[in-house]
Parts: sequence; structure tokens; C-alpha cells
Amino acid sequence: MDGIPGSFGTAASLSLRLGQAFFSVASLLFMSVGVEFYSYTAFCFLVTIMGLLIPWSTTLAMVDIYSIFVGCRLRLPGVMVIVVLGDWSLSILSLAAACATAGVVDSLIHTNGPYCPPKYCGRYQVSAAMAFLSWVLTALSFLVNLWLMASL
Amino acid sequence: MDGIPGSFGTAASLSLRLGQAFFSVASLLFMSVGVEFYSYTAFCFLVTIMGLLIPWSTTLAMVDIYSIFVGCRLRLPGVMVIVVLGDWSLSILSLAAACATAGVVDSLIHTNGPYCPPKYCGRYQVSAAMAFLSWVLTALSFLVNLWLMASL
Repeated sequence: MDGIPGSFGTAASLSLRLGQAFFSVASLLFMSVGVEFYSYTAFCFLVTIMGLLIPWSTTLAMVDIYSIFVGCRLRLPGVMVIVVLGDWSLSILSLAAACATAGVVDSLIHTNGPYCPPKYCGRYQVSAAMAFLSWVLTALSFLVNLWLMASL
Repeated sequence: MDGIPGSFGTAASLSLRLGQAFFSVASLLFMSVGVEFYSYTAFCFLVTIMGLLIPWSTTLAMVDIYSIFVGCRLRLPGVMVIVVLGDWSLSILSLAAACATAGVVDSLIHTNGPYCPPKYCGRYQVSAAMAFLSWVLTALSFLVNLWLMASL
């Protein structure tokens, strides 16, 4: 089952991890730089989850780089369980954060009050979209590694 | 691999499906009966997804009842792929709907405006909680059936 593209320790997995880290950083920056994000629970939740996803993805990207260059794949059952559980929880949390943020931004636009100047609303929307893309890549990593673990 | 509790065609799977249908119906009723739910996109999305989840769960519950009483398990690869793909998409959508609804309700309480009388806000919260429970059961069904499919 070494041929599954995207499984732990392959070049495809490395690109997934780098994509996750990139989109998480983008989401975090769009949400937090120069914007008062702490006025809504959903926005604080998004910042928290992106702050968890960035170190997770970069750590696993470094492990992937090690596996690719040294040629030794760390596919011990214990390691795989940790990777799958981490991807699973972070993918659920990032989807939840992205959807909650999108819902709040939509309701802010809808109420049309003074709560959402157009400039900020656009940045919130971009941040939610980046978090969504980050979720897509995390869920892909999770599914591939779960499939690998089940078929070992 | 017949021993996996909750896999397609077992009594545990039937109870999961009945739980999904129950919580979806509860979420739909709390959101839609006597409340103007169509004022926010997230609420309409929740109603749509619960409206999809109810027939899906009841259909699979009937298939489970057939499997249990007749003793013939419909575990053809094609059927399993359809069940896993359906559970997968509906679990993602129901989590997204529950989180978007929860985010909107939270922002409505926060803005403290005339948009959310306490009576309605409580009902929206209960509806989001029911959708969340429905997601938990759908995700369980998905994971068990994916594991079964991967190990076949």
C-alpha cells in the first residue's frame, strides 16, 4: 500500500502539509491583522484553530521532508494513530471554524448595521475561504492516512 | 470483519440511523415551526440539510431492518461505496450547517439588537445542538463503513 499518493512520508503528503500551513497562515493573517476579530466568538475560534493547525502542519511537513531525504518511513502503528487522530480532530475543528465564520459574516452583511464595514467584511470572507481550503487539505490527509491504516 | 459494531446491516447501524433521523427531525422542527427561519442563509442551509438527512437515514434504517430480519447483508462493493459517499457528504454538510447556525445565533445574541427575541434564540440554539448530535451519529456511521470498506 506504499503507492497511495498523499500517505504519510511521501512527496504528495509534503505538498498537502505545505498547503495546509500556507492557507492557515493566510486565514490567520486576514482575520487578525488590523481587524478587531475578538468581537465575535466564531472569529476567536477561527484564530485559535488556525493557531493550532499551523504548528501541526509544519511539524508533519518536516517529518515528511526527513522521510523523503533519508528514505526511512516512520510508519509505526503508534505514529500513524497519532497522525490520523490529529488530522481528524483538526479537520473537524477547522471546518467548524470556517463555517461559523462564514455564517457570522453572512449575518453581519444581512443585518446591514454598523457592525461590518465593507472593507472588514471582505477580509472576514477571505479568511473563511482560506480556512475552508485548509480544511479540504487536512481532510484529504486524514482520509488517505485512515485508508492506509485500515489496509495495513 | 463482520464483527465491527455499527457497520452496514447490523443492529447497531440501525440504532445509529434511527438516532440520526430523530435528531434531524428535532432540529428541523425547532428551526422551522413558528419561527421565521428564512431570514438568514445559515438557517435555510440547516433546514435544507436536515431535509436531506431525514430521507437518507430512514431509507438506510429500512435497509438495516431488512438485513436484520431476512439475514441477508447487502454488502456489495457498489452499495458500500454509495453508503460511504452519502454518509461522508451528509456528515460534512450537517457539521457545516450546525456550526454556521451556532455562529449566527451567537452573533445575534452578541449584537443584542432587536433581531433575536430570547424565545427564538433559545430555539435556534436547541436546533443547532440537535444538528450537531445528528452530525456525530452520521460521522460515526461514515467512519465505521469506511473502515469496513478499506478492510474488505
